[in-house]
Amino acid sequence: MNPFRQITIVGTGLLGGSIGLGLKRQGYSGPIVGVGRRSEVIRQAVGCGCIDRGTTDLAQAVIGSDLVILATPIGMFEKLLIHLKTCLPPGAIITDVGSTKGYVGQLAADHLTADQHRRFVGSHPMAGAEVHGPQHARADLFAGRGCVLTPTDATDSQVLERVQSLWRMLGMRLVRMTPEQHDQLVASVSHLPHAMAVMLIHLTLIDPASDESKHLAQQIAATGLKDTTRLASGDPKVWTDIFLTNRQAVSQTVRAMASQLDRFAHWLDQADESTVHEFLSQGQAAREQWLKLRPDLACCGQEPAAASD
Amino acid sequence: MNPFRQITIVGTGLLGGSIGLGLKRQGYSGPIVGVGRRSEVIRQAVGCGCIDRGTTDLAQAVIGSDLVILATPIGMFEKLLIHLKTCLPPGAIITDVGSTKGYVGQLAADHLTADQHRRFVGSHPMAGAEVHGPQHARADLFAGRGCVLTPTDATDSQVLERVQSLWRMLGMRLVRMTPEQHDQLVASVSHLPHAMAVMLIHLTLIDPASDESKHLAQQIAATGLKDTTRLASGDPKVWTDIFLTNRQAVSQTVRAMASQLDRFAHWLDQADESTVHEFLSQGQAAREQWLKLRPDLACCGQEPAAASD
Repeated sequence: MNPFRQITIVGTGLLGGSIGLGLKRQGYSGPIVGVGRRSEVIRQAVGCGCIDRGTTDLAQAVIGSDLVILATPIGMFEKLLIHLKTCLPPGAIITDVGSTKGYVGQLAADHLTADQHRRFVGSHPMAGAEVHGPQHARADLFAGRGCVLTPTDATDSQVLERVQSLWRMLGMRLVRMTPEQHDQLVASVSHLPHAMAVMLIHLTLIDPASDESKHLAQQIAATGLKDTTRLASGDPKVWTDIFLTNRQAVSQTVRAMASQLDRFAHWLDQADESTVHEFLSQGQAAREQWLKLRPDLACCGQEPAAASD
Repeated sequence: MNPFRQITIVGTGLLGGSIGLGLKRQGYSGPIVGVGRRSEVIRQAVGCGCIDRGTTDLAQAVIGSDLVILATPIGMFEKLLIHLKTCLPPGAIITDVGSTKGYVGQLAADHLTADQHRRFVGSHPMAGAEVHGPQHARADLFAGRGCVLTPTDATDSQVLERVQSLWRMLGMRLVRMTPEQHDQLVASVSHLPHAMAVMLIHLTLIDPASDESKHLAQQIAATGLKDTTRLASGDPKVWTDIFLTNRQAVSQTVRAMASQLDRFAHWLDQADESTVHEFLSQGQAAREQWLKLRPDLACCGQEPAAASD
């Protein structure tokens, strides 16, 4: 039942903590060791039952582990991989939960030994939240969600199998693709929605020239704005790393969205009612069809009947 | 306790139905009469307790009422006002729940008699949902939310008072502004988020050229995309009417958003990490500050800890 003898989780926030909780819930009985920069967070993670023990010393934390999971913000990965090169136990496997995979794969190729690199597999479990810290960790955070795996030609096939067994144990659906395919795809389904959420907050609540306009917007905006901007509450540091390490694909999809906005404005200028109606109808149908395919997103059995306008 | 002797609600869907339910919950004891095009919906609305009785005949429905509330899609307002001109009881007040106010105010000025026009007040209760029909009506749909009132120079001040008492009875916070101010404001806090939600669905689930890309997007997109696109499930007809009757303001704010997207893409092209980080930090702070001011939006006491990437 134990795919690994001992697991080290680097970064015991929401994601790292939820991996630990989830593995224990699923019957994993080997030790889970946490590593972090702040001993306070480590203590919290032990207190929540996310990890069995923790330390701020990476070299100490990996002793005896046959799996190391990087679950910090992506901006810390380079330093961590450079350090791991010198202290990773022979035969240990490395994976990560980073939201961009081309950049992370390049770091692994650049900084690990050839042997270590064969035992590196990039993962992206498509789950998370706008809340931070191990106190928000949930054993079921990953259940039913998609997990992208991005093996390369360098990856050992048995290593890939073992990393897959980790995510399967957490209830995830596995989807394999190249790092480039992944980055392109998440640029539109994840990074673009995040950028738009932040931009909406700026346009509605920050940019209005007069204090009166800002005040009125705050007073009358309802759950439509609340829900479409939920992602804007995400950690700015985490998301700056994500945007910057996937900047080519994000920039491209952001510009595609800008063109779509201009087209929509043009339809309105032309009072092109039938095109607008067709566009809205297609969007409604595609969303409903998508949600039917994804019962894991139903959470609580229904859409919240929340105010929208 | 009864601000009106008898109330006629034209359109007994989610909004009209929730007004009826809410008034009854608050102790309104006069008759509530519903009007609609389909007798099946009328029967449902009676069955749900949203209205006491109903008919498909507007002239019949307004007999004996001192308040008529228009709660159909905006596209039907012109016909309704032309008809009301001939059948509205003397002294009766008219209001509406339409999402655009300049257009509706102009219709009232154009089609009602001068005397009727003095007794017309545009309202926009900022609540709703992406679900339709009286079966989704909720007595508390409006509680705590903002209601915009757009009286003009023509409006009788006592009439305004009485319409305000209606929305207060439903627990709404009243905000008065001109129709133009309203339309500008909702273009950004409500209509733009809706348009963006629909565009996101197109870009992620409809536009990808290959079936494989569409399939992968459907498989890996998570609650981030789900929440940011919730509004896209709204009724295409209702929203086409809204966009078309506020097309100047919406077109303007949509273009402003397109420019913002282009700026963001430019920052990424330049790898301008500090600007991106600052932009995300400001957005996060402004959203948190807004939600603190609006406990009515907390619903269920907390944000859903839902997956975002």
